[in-house]
Amino acid sequence: MRHPFSPPDIRVEFDVALIVQKYGGSSVADAESIKRVAKRIVDTRRAGHDVVVAVSAMGDTTDELLDLAGQVAPIPAPRELDMLLSSGERISMALLAMAIHSMGFEARSFTGSQAGMITTADHGSARIVDVTPIRLREALDEGAIVIVAGFQGFNRDTRDITTLGRGGSDTTAVALAAALDADVCEIYSDVDGIFTADPRVVPKAQKLNVVSAEEMLELAANGAKVLYIRAVEYARRHRVLIHARSTFSSSVGTYVLGPGMSVPEGEEGEEMEEPIVAGVATDLGQAKITVIGVPDVPGKAAEIFKVIAKSGANVDMIVQNVSAAATGRTDISFTLPKTDAATALKALVGDQSDIGFENLVHDDQIGKLSVVGAGMRTHSGVSATLFEALSVAGINIEMISTSEIRISVVVRGDDLAEAARVVHTAYGLDGDIEATVHAGTGR
Amino acid sequence: MRHPFSPPDIRVEFDVALIVQKYGGSSVADAESIKRVAKRIVDTRRAGHDVVVAVSAMGDTTDELLDLAGQVAPIPAPRELDMLLSSGERISMALLAMAIHSMGFEARSFTGSQAGMITTADHGSARIVDVTPIRLREALDEGAIVIVAGFQGFNRDTRDITTLGRGGSDTTAVALAAALDADVCEIYSDVDGIFTADPRVVPKAQKLNVVSAEEMLELAANGAKVLYIRAVEYARRHRVLIHARSTFSSSVGTYVLGPGMSVPEGEEGEEMEEPIVAGVATDLGQAKITVIGVPDVPGKAAEIFKVIAKSGANVDMIVQNVSAAATGRTDISFTLPKTDAATALKALVGDQSDIGFENLVHDDQIGKLSVVGAGMRTHSGVSATLFEALSVAGINIEMISTSEIRISVVVRGDDLAEAARVVHTAYGLDGDIEATVHAGTGR
Repeated sequence: MRHPFSPPDIRVEFDVALIVQKYGGSSVADAESIKRVAKRIVDTRRAGHDVVVAVSAMGDTTDELLDLAGQVAPIPAPRELDMLLSSGERISMALLAMAIHSMGFEARSFTGSQAGMITTADHGSARIVDVTPIRLREALDEGAIVIVAGFQGFNRDTRDITTLGRGGSDTTAVALAAALDADVCEIYSDVDGIFTADPRVVPKAQKLNVVSAEEMLELAANGAKVLYIRAVEYARRHRVLIHARSTFSSSVGTYVLGPGMSVPEGEEGEEMEEPIVAGVATDLGQAKITVIGVPDVPGKAAEIFKVIAKSGANVDMIVQNVSAAATGRTDISFTLPKTDAATALKALVGDQSDIGFENLVHDDQIGKLSVVGAGMRTHSGVSATLFEALSVAGINIEMISTSEIRISVVVRGDDLAEAARVVHTAYGLDGDIEATVHAGTGR
Repeated sequence: MRHPFSPPDIRVEFDVALIVQKYGGSSVADAESIKRVAKRIVDTRRAGHDVVVAVSAMGDTTDELLDLAGQVAPIPAPRELDMLLSSGERISMALLAMAIHSMGFEARSFTGSQAGMITTADHGSARIVDVTPIRLREALDEGAIVIVAGFQGFNRDTRDITTLGRGGSDTTAVALAAALDADVCEIYSDVDGIFTADPRVVPKAQKLNVVSAEEMLELAANGAKVLYIRAVEYARRHRVLIHARSTFSSSVGTYVLGPGMSVPEGEEGEEMEEPIVAGVATDLGQAKITVIGVPDVPGKAAEIFKVIAKSGANVDMIVQNVSAAATGRTDISFTLPKTDAATALKALVGDQSDIGFENLVHDDQIGKLSVVGAGMRTHSGVSATLFEALSVAGINIEMISTSEIRISVVVRGDDLAEAARVVHTAYGLDGDIEATVHAGTGR
């Protein structure tokens, strides 16, 4: 069965367009990769388009620099750490510009500050507050291909270099696309686009040609790794058309559409039946903490989650058991990223006597499965299909949470892959052929 | 015999001073070295001084980046090559600032452009045209130690990053010292200062406590490697006191004095007998080309050296044989850096028929010995001592050239070390004990 979002002939061609492309670290890991990416950029230019490229640091450069920093200072000064890390993109962008040059095309590289990427002063996790791409426009007007350092910017008040944190280069690309009013922002990785499920987990997963930004946000927040939430959020707010596609092929990837947006070049009129479910996301990165024997009096849950919030841990799902009247106590379970679990446990233990709970149970053998689809708003029975499929497969549901367009369940980690496959089938998402999976993960 | 420039008690102490320090790539080659340099900087700060540091890229970083550039582009675009290479200092300066930070001192790193290092637009060999260290002054006023990327600057018109070429970090340090009106510019390397000869060649060479800038320029131009000509020239022009000293010891190195300058702290009144000869420089990096059978008519020499100049090769010494009347032809020999020899030979061969010479002989087995001393101006017999010493040692002189304060001779390369030793002795420069030699060469 073909997924309704995968018609055979959605091919988007622009006449003369301004195209922003983003290449991650694995796409520019060595000299050969850089030359391959340069060729792709040159091909886009040859087709008559203006091209602006956001590029990450080469391969493991950022990790190597972090390692060096750790060797000279146990807790590196944040301003200097940003200065250090920002050198990574400086290397990759200059090499990429050189490679393009030697193919006979004019290319110029720009640092975050030269590109006018203005951010807050929060070193390591700066947010973009303005983009003033004056020099980029000049370079484009002069016919040059523009290469911009991803992941970095500068603060106007301190005049210091900043970095944007995880997924920063995606955000750089989208912000450039917004500021330059680009026709499309192509995010390249080593996968073909957004799939109805992770093809490594669900072999019959199909590539989506289109996904809505709100669905993409839910998918990204619940385990899909191809795009970063911040970039998708920025794109939705600034009406940037994202095209997630593969460095290794020239076929169409997945378009991410914000509200009111459509696939360009007359595709917008095409009537496509909106599927109820866009995809199934899986996440093995969560842990579950259960607070046992919490006094069943008003305000106790608030107390617990205030303590956890203060520790900096990000709570995801919460379930409170029905109180056992006999004891006057109840249990509260919640999930959070595995990496935050130690912090949260420590914070809770520190306030145990104040809160008055009896015990803590930590469980990192869970898996979260999320079904995402904008069609859920208008269709009933979506959750029934999910529960029925899991029940038939004999998979136990431990927690449930829902949003307007998502249902998530927690199951045993060992059951997660099987759960994803049966649910994928139950919603009619299976493709006819198995998807090809590239090695590595997208960045 | 003690060298007259080596009195036992020239010790220079400042009360509260602004000190510029320069550390080369070998001084910051790895995390341990960086921590060692950080400690030295902190010690200077603890003594109450303001400190501004110019730092080179770590160890072999520049060569590694050049290698990468060569892999992606046969002839890298100069603008992009400067962008690439300038990332090297960005790494070392950020790491150095972090290391200082973690020792409890405030430190801030600045790129060439942040430091106000304004240059011409000649990528790869830019010249400093102005220094506007506004941010550095602010940081100093706030009590911070300032770390500046050596070797780099930016051009105001193109707003592009530039690099200063060979010895650029020395020049950065001197230019900062001039712009900030620093009390001294300390150039650190792995040798103790400027010696009367290269201690690896002449074991009895003595460290000079003081050398005049004009002598230093001649020594540097003729083979002494501790300081770069450009930096010394800049220091002389802007009246910057250079102190060349070792990263591995705290003892006084060598002060380089411009005209009218003196060693600070009351040392200027001390009467020291000016030695006739400051030092003996040796250079094995030259080659000799002899143009055989040049028609002995006016204008032929001009023709030859115009061709060579156009090729970009730098001619050093020139000797023309007395013409043999019978043939009406003569031979012209000249020396030039070995690295320029191929270029010059190619240029000459291309114009052989126009010039009308018979043959070319290339000889790269020569050595140049130079005796440098400001005292030569007022003392006769200096050259006689040189020729006599070489004659007694049985060393043949192939070419001679002189400047106001220098005599240079070309000998067989194999004879150069022996020549340096006998000449060093003849001028009374030998010390009582042999100098300690560190591994590696200064940058």
